[in-house]
Amino acid sequence: MSESKPPAPHRLTASEALRRIRAGTLRAEDLLESCLERIAARDPAVHAFTHVDAAAARAALARAPSGPLQGLPVAVKDVLDVAGMPAGYGSPIWDGHRPHADAAAVAWARAAGAVVLGKTVTTEFAMMRPGATVNPLDPKRTPGGSSSGSAAAVADFMTPVAFATQTAGSIIRPAAFCGVVGYKPSFGMIPRLGLKVMSDSLDTIGVIARSVADCALFAGALTGRDLGDPDTRPDRPPRIGLCRSPSWPKAAAETVALFDRAAATLARAGAYVTPRELPDAFRALEQAHPLVMHGESARSMGWEMLEQRDLLSGRLRERLEWGAAQGPAKLDEARATFGRLQAAFPATMEGVDVLLTPSAPGEAPVGLDATGDPVFNYIWTSLHVPCVTVPAGTGPGGAPLGVQIIARRGEDRAALIWAQWVAAALVG
Amino acid sequence: MSESKPPAPHRLTASEALRRIRAGTLRAEDLLESCLERIAARDPAVHAFTHVDAAAARAALARAPSGPLQGLPVAVKDVLDVAGMPAGYGSPIWDGHRPHADAAAVAWARAAGAVVLGKTVTTEFAMMRPGATVNPLDPKRTPGGSSSGSAAAVADFMTPVAFATQTAGSIIRPAAFCGVVGYKPSFGMIPRLGLKVMSDSLDTIGVIARSVADCALFAGALTGRDLGDPDTRPDRPPRIGLCRSPSWPKAAAETVALFDRAAATLARAGAYVTPRELPDAFRALEQAHPLVMHGESARSMGWEMLEQRDLLSGRLRERLEWGAAQGPAKLDEARATFGRLQAAFPATMEGVDVLLTPSAPGEAPVGLDATGDPVFNYIWTSLHVPCVTVPAGTGPGGAPLGVQIIARRGEDRAALIWAQWVAAALVG
Repeated sequence: MSESKPPAPHRLTASEALRRIRAGTLRAEDLLESCLERIAARDPAVHAFTHVDAAAARAALARAPSGPLQGLPVAVKDVLDVAGMPAGYGSPIWDGHRPHADAAAVAWARAAGAVVLGKTVTTEFAMMRPGATVNPLDPKRTPGGSSSGSAAAVADFMTPVAFATQTAGSIIRPAAFCGVVGYKPSFGMIPRLGLKVMSDSLDTIGVIARSVADCALFAGALTGRDLGDPDTRPDRPPRIGLCRSPSWPKAAAETVALFDRAAATLARAGAYVTPRELPDAFRALEQAHPLVMHGESARSMGWEMLEQRDLLSGRLRERLEWGAAQGPAKLDEARATFGRLQAAFPATMEGVDVLLTPSAPGEAPVGLDATGDPVFNYIWTSLHVPCVTVPAGTGPGGAPLGVQIIARRGEDRAALIWAQWVAAALVG
Repeated sequence: MSESKPPAPHRLTASEALRRIRAGTLRAEDLLESCLERIAARDPAVHAFTHVDAAAARAALARAPSGPLQGLPVAVKDVLDVAGMPAGYGSPIWDGHRPHADAAAVAWARAAGAVVLGKTVTTEFAMMRPGATVNPLDPKRTPGGSSSGSAAAVADFMTPVAFATQTAGSIIRPAAFCGVVGYKPSFGMIPRLGLKVMSDSLDTIGVIARSVADCALFAGALTGRDLGDPDTRPDRPPRIGLCRSPSWPKAAAETVALFDRAAATLARAGAYVTPRELPDAFRALEQAHPLVMHGESARSMGWEMLEQRDLLSGRLRERLEWGAAQGPAKLDEARATFGRLQAAFPATMEGVDVLLTPSAPGEAPVGLDATGDPVFNYIWTSLHVPCVTVPAGTGPGGAPLGVQIIARRGEDRAALIWAQWVAAALVG
């Protein structure tokens, strides 16, 4: 047994904390207080939360049901409703709004024993305009977005897990920029009632955590799915398709180097690694994704566009107006393109278990007026496939890099298990 | 010119009322007051509305923008939010809830000039338990559901158009039972933000009105689509596939007779009419639809199931528990079945413009404790195709019958134009 001082509870992964709670070596109350203290100490600098309610969290813990997430603190991106807490959606338009009910995903997490700490910063309606959050590893850099607060809160040990959402790259990119794990499930896996859905064909709820196993545990518990235990070593190595993707020209030098390094390291660790690019037809997503995202968002934002137009940022208004101006025929065609390529995708993965592709162009950009480029993400969101980003070293500025693991739609378990295999190989 | 007294404004179709308003022969104020008077006179017996706000409607009319729906009264099914009006979703759980914003569909209708009269009765969460609405043509009979109030209000001339929604047969069936026109658009055509979405893969917003042209006008105006003018006679007759559908054994005698009669009448009117049944593979929807509907609804209703369980009806709780108990593997497989059959459907329509199929098993059943069987609807909702029901005579009890016109996904314009052709042929 080690004699060294045990880590503060807020430093533990969700899986480790829950193991200790179940073993009786950690009190859920102490885990909660440790997270609240960490928030009090750090959030004035990081600005990950829009709202923290210590009293509500303590009361919720006192009546949390037993379950796989018993006593686990969770933070909720501020596009998902939590009963009685402010839901601002990153916009002054919704200042003062307090929903009556929990979003379905939040309710199921609570039913599994999770305890809501508070709401985390989102960009404006989970689109462009950043909130106040900084990258906790380097406050000059963006934390990424739109799930800025969830990524920063997890990376800075304020909460072990957080809800996030993705329409283009809003889970994977901030998780990679903050050096943590992000998991965007297959489209439709986590129910969306109580989410401010902007793009019906794209918006996906997911998880940010500090380990792949935590993502599997959390998403599995709230959906009633067995997503496996990624910490259990599989009995064979993976077959990995190295997919630079159509966005490769946007890869920074550190990403090009990372890819060469990762290919060699993974092969050395026993993986079968083979280049695997998407057929040219998939380039159609370059046009189709913005059409669907902004076309659908413009229609969804009817009330805001018509009644609260002046309170939308110029940037968002411009994107929504562009989306609306494209017209229904182009939107229908773009959605048909989605359907066609979703059906075609499994064939491109013939003979491999997963694809490995960049999580972002490079390390988090310096500057807080934008959240980086989702160019390595929108393809996979459009295809409705599960994506997991895991940490994979650092860039020239010392900021984290990630690699992204992709599986076929519905094969979330494989995505998670092989993501953990890749993470272990790259770090080991 | 006729010397007879002009019809009261509330009797006019939306298209005719708007024509007169534009021509200066009808004041929008008089149309509104006429509808409000009709509601005051009739709704105490029909119970179509949960909430009517005459003052708010008058104020809304005073500031209604000019547009294609200028001054047109509309009723809103109580699963769609209207800012400041109660949103009860047909459940005591949501008593007293008043949303801050309009649902996107409502906002776009307002932006086109429509004026909200109030909220109409839905069954409990647009599922089984009926509200208080009676069939205005025969108060012993169900108006159908879940869009009970919208169908009854339109049929009884309280409003020219109403919003409705469909997960199984909730637009088409009540419209048919009440002798009016129901239009369920292609999945995703009308944005869902602000709808209480139970089944993400099925829930579709649509319209109930007293003419096909009114449905095209209203849905076109709020989506910015040109859905054509079904009152303009096309330059050729349609090619119609007569589809008894896999549900034919549930057809009542009046529906069997109606089908024989309709085939002969349509052929006489010039249509090419040919039998066209769905391949056997489509029988998989019999299993897949309830799995998706109740499996997704159970996940969406997390908060209600966990926090307000005792306020759910026993019937709904039982269906949700059944859905949840099926587990994620069956749900995923059912959703995959949807995708496969959606892709296969266009081939089954080779050589015909539309399918003609029953709207319901027969006339509206006597009794108010259930809303009838969606057995002739769930197939088409699952396939995401546009459906239009038009009146087609009466049954042995003197209650209305409808026939349903189906087109390929995205071919809403064709569905509407040929539905009007069919309606005219059957009545003429």
